Amino acid sequence: MAITPRSQDYSQWYNDIVQNADLAENSSVRWCMVIKPYWFGIWENIQNILDTMFKNTGHKNAYFPLFIPKSFLSKEADHVEHFAKECAIVTHYRLKLDENKKLIVDPEAKLEEELIVRPTSETIIRDSYKRRVNSYRDLPILINQRANIVRREMRTRIFLRTAEFLRQEWHTAHATYEEAEAETKKMHKVYNDFATNFLAISPVLWPKPEHDKFAGALRTYAVEPMMQDFKALQAGTSHNLGQNFWRVFDVKFTNDKNELDYVRGTSRWVSTRLIWWLIMSHSDDKWLVIPPALAPVHVIIIPIFKTPEELEQIKTYLKPLTKSISKWKLKIKSVYFKDTIRLTYQIDDDDQKSMWRKFNQRELKWVPIRIAVWPRDMADWNVEIYRRDTGEKEVVKLEDAINKIAPLLHRIQNNLFEKNKSMRQDHTYYVDNYDEFKEKLKTWFVMAHRDWTTETALKIQDETKATIRCLPFKEFIKKEYTGKWKCIITWRPSKWRVLFAKAY
Amino acid sequence: MAITPRSQDYSQWYNDIVQNADLAENSSVRWCMVIKPYWFGIWENIQNILDTMFKNTGHKNAYFPLFIPKSFLSKEADHVEHFAKECAIVTHYRLKLDENKKLIVDPEAKLEEELIVRPTSETIIRDSYKRRVNSYRDLPILINQRANIVRREMRTRIFLRTAEFLRQEWHTAHATYEEAEAETKKMHKVYNDFATNFLAISPVLWPKPEHDKFAGALRTYAVEPMMQDFKALQAGTSHNLGQNFWRVFDVKFTNDKNELDYVRGTSRWVSTRLIWWLIMSHSDDKWLVIPPALAPVHVIIIPIFKTPEELEQIKTYLKPLTKSISKWKLKIKSVYFKDTIRLTYQIDDDDQKSMWRKFNQRELKWVPIRIAVWPRDMADWNVEIYRRDTGEKEVVKLEDAINKIAPLLHRIQNNLFEKNKSMRQDHTYYVDNYDEFKEKLKTWFVMAHRDWTTETALKIQDETKATIRCLPFKEFIKKEYTGKWKCIITWRPSKWRVLFAKAY
Repeated sequence: MAITPRSQDYSQWYNDIVQNADLAENSSVRWCMVIKPYWFGIWENIQNILDTMFKNTGHKNAYFPLFIPKSFLSKEADHVEHFAKECAIVTHYRLKLDENKKLIVDPEAKLEEELIVRPTSETIIRDSYKRRVNSYRDLPILINQRANIVRREMRTRIFLRTAEFLRQEWHTAHATYEEAEAETKKMHKVYNDFATNFLAISPVLWPKPEHDKFAGALRTYAVEPMMQDFKALQAGTSHNLGQNFWRVFDVKFTNDKNELDYVRGTSRWVSTRLIWWLIMSHSDDKWLVIPPALAPVHVIIIPIFKTPEELEQIKTYLKPLTKSISKWKLKIKSVYFKDTIRLTYQIDDDDQKSMWRKFNQRELKWVPIRIAVWPRDMADWNVEIYRRDTGEKEVVKLEDAINKIAPLLHRIQNNLFEKNKSMRQDHTYYVDNYDEFKEKLKTWFVMAHRDWTTETALKIQDETKATIRCLPFKEFIKKEYTGKWKCIITWRPSKWRVLFAKAY
Repeated sequence: MAITPRSQDYSQWYNDIVQNADLAENSSVRWCMVIKPYWFGIWENIQNILDTMFKNTGHKNAYFPLFIPKSFLSKEADHVEHFAKECAIVTHYRLKLDENKKLIVDPEAKLEEELIVRPTSETIIRDSYKRRVNSYRDLPILINQRANIVRREMRTRIFLRTAEFLRQEWHTAHATYEEAEAETKKMHKVYNDFATNFLAISPVLWPKPEHDKFAGALRTYAVEPMMQDFKALQAGTSHNLGQNFWRVFDVKFTNDKNELDYVRGTSRWVSTRLIWWLIMSHSDDKWLVIPPALAPVHVIIIPIFKTPEELEQIKTYLKPLTKSISKWKLKIKSVYFKDTIRLTYQIDDDDQKSMWRKFNQRELKWVPIRIAVWPRDMADWNVEIYRRDTGEKEVVKLEDAINKIAPLLHRIQNNLFEKNKSMRQDHTYYVDNYDEFKEKLKTWFVMAHRDWTTETALKIQDETKATIRCLPFKEFIKKEYTGKWKCIITWRPSKWRVLFAKAY
């Protein structure tokens, strides 16, 4: 099946990539997807790397219930507004056969209180922390949970919007505002480490504007990368939640001055949406592209053979190479992940597939390096190395191949990152009037002045579909502050430019 | 809090251990538990080890939907009978505020078809495999899923029976009976490898009797360990499911003779019940006991200090030791898990806790080795090593301590396994009459003759509460076959003895 080019229909291109790479499928359950092994392999790598990063910063894993009692959601109007209106509601607990032997819900088995399949876990986690926290000595609590989440989506789209999705969610509790803010900022840095070193994506890392923070948060720090159609996609956020939510659940503790106080919280999460991010950032009109640091398979070896004997000969020939590959490791320049990544390879020895299918099927699943061996290569001690990201081919001696693979994987990882970074930098534009603003929005992130009212932000959004993605940190602004800036619409004073973009 | 001795009240002893070791708590959602970090750390180790074993035998991970349409369950009467009667049923998809601003289920948002929160995943997985399988070349499919499962339980008990629990479930599809049977038996061996080498438990590994197989299975192989109260606890089963289930979902393929045929399946799973297993097998009247191969922390270091300066001195003194611990690895004699286990340590430097609390809190959480350092030890270059399983203490030179830890952990692991194995062997009794049978059941696994009718099995169960746990493999029986055996109740002929026990 041919892939629709990005320039023709970006949205269809995405669907084609997902389908061709066999990443997931819609299931028979409306709104839910089946995540297939290749993609799940990428998700496992993501989970393991993040897990290591979070353990290295003192977090532990735990598990909280799938169900939230309805009364928990009633406690927070905000929560209901944002999450719980469209959700999966459990009302009964028994099936039975009716007089016609048909399976029906037993009307007598009605729950006293309805249970909501978690649209997010804040309430149930706070309820549990409440039992654990008495004194400041019980704080901080730094916990992560891997969970499935359910929100009913009207229009579903694989990985971006499905009713059920998987995520890691971190919920921490602290004694002081300062400590909660420090945790929020530190984890924002961890996200950046993960984005740049593993996802090979260079996002903008600034706070969200007041009107677009997570409902109830004091501060929200965003991770905003640019997709290949120059739209932003909010991909990770880190929230300092203050005491609001904890007050609702009455989670108090005795502080070090022996006074009763409410706990402060932070939260953040990453979900299977990351795959959407990855696809939209790196893949091209030919195939899915996954960075080596996350790839489930690093090297695909394709022996070209006609008979089983030829296959065996080639396998024997390749032994020195295959034996070494699994011993090699990829070392990533990460601050929070000090482990190495073990290299993996596969041999495609299917005797039924055409050469074309072999070369193309595997490529589709983005194996960063392909090594092909023809029988004639063996006489010359050659193999052919193909590099997926640039399409470059090279015939090298077998003994040299061994030393080329790990450095090549590093180059591919860096190349993807640099491409992503240049795209964002080259497509970020400073504008000073509204006409130019509207024009540039098509293919740029736009830095523009605006007065600090939510009205103006919403007016711009109405007229252009662009939203304020984030506000620069003060350190960034100081460099250019002149004091004379005006809003591009109202001409009222502006303190500094903020980042506008169209977004998913 | 004191722990009730096993001899006094085994059931209360279990509850006390769970509570004291801070493993889990009942949540505010009836039937659901919160799994706390220490226990979740053990579960993560279990998951990772099994994951490696299953990947080493060709399995891949994937993810299937949380919800099962009611019509899927209707297709299989057996399935409903065993799993789906008591379950969580999603009937609505929206909450709204009523005229009094009260949060209610929107009566207009009723699902066309009710969804059941998965009580097990067979049906939804078969539905997905159906889309993947056309030819024998698409087989086998060897997939594992980590999932949360919900079954309503009338009487809940932490880890043994909670509505929601976590598990790994393997569902494979094959072209032939032989291949499915080979997979079923191989995975039974993998279970045994895991039980003996990691859980340090020596189970009986035989097939289940006809009337006690998994509903619809052709063959079920059991893993039956003995608990410390001499009851059996079915802990893992491996099922050859044949074609029955696949016929219902019409999952056909073209075999290598170009004929249409139904797929054959196998399945198995392990769940958070394993923790119940672990506690009941090894823990004693003092504390929780976890084998080193699964322990989240291997060494707890307790510096005895009065001032922050003393603490710093001790930490500096211990540097050579702590630096080495993390470099050491535990090598386990497993066939299916070739990796090593990295050793971990913690230093308890809390200045507020009494010595008593430090020594006892950590012990409770079963850290296999405790190292204590008094200021006076530093002058002599000594540390004190305490071995949790035997209570033996030894003062050794700091430089020697480094080389003692890994071998000691191996000895502890072996000791736990040998204790468990001896208990089962010493408490397995061969009886030839019904009175002796009833007497011995109190503290033994009983090998006894019975005719091959289900009636007799159920009669024995009614009268004694003992069930047939499993039937010996033929290889085992040949050793002792005489041809003259009679059933202990009906005196009809018996082919060989089978294993009876009271069970959880």
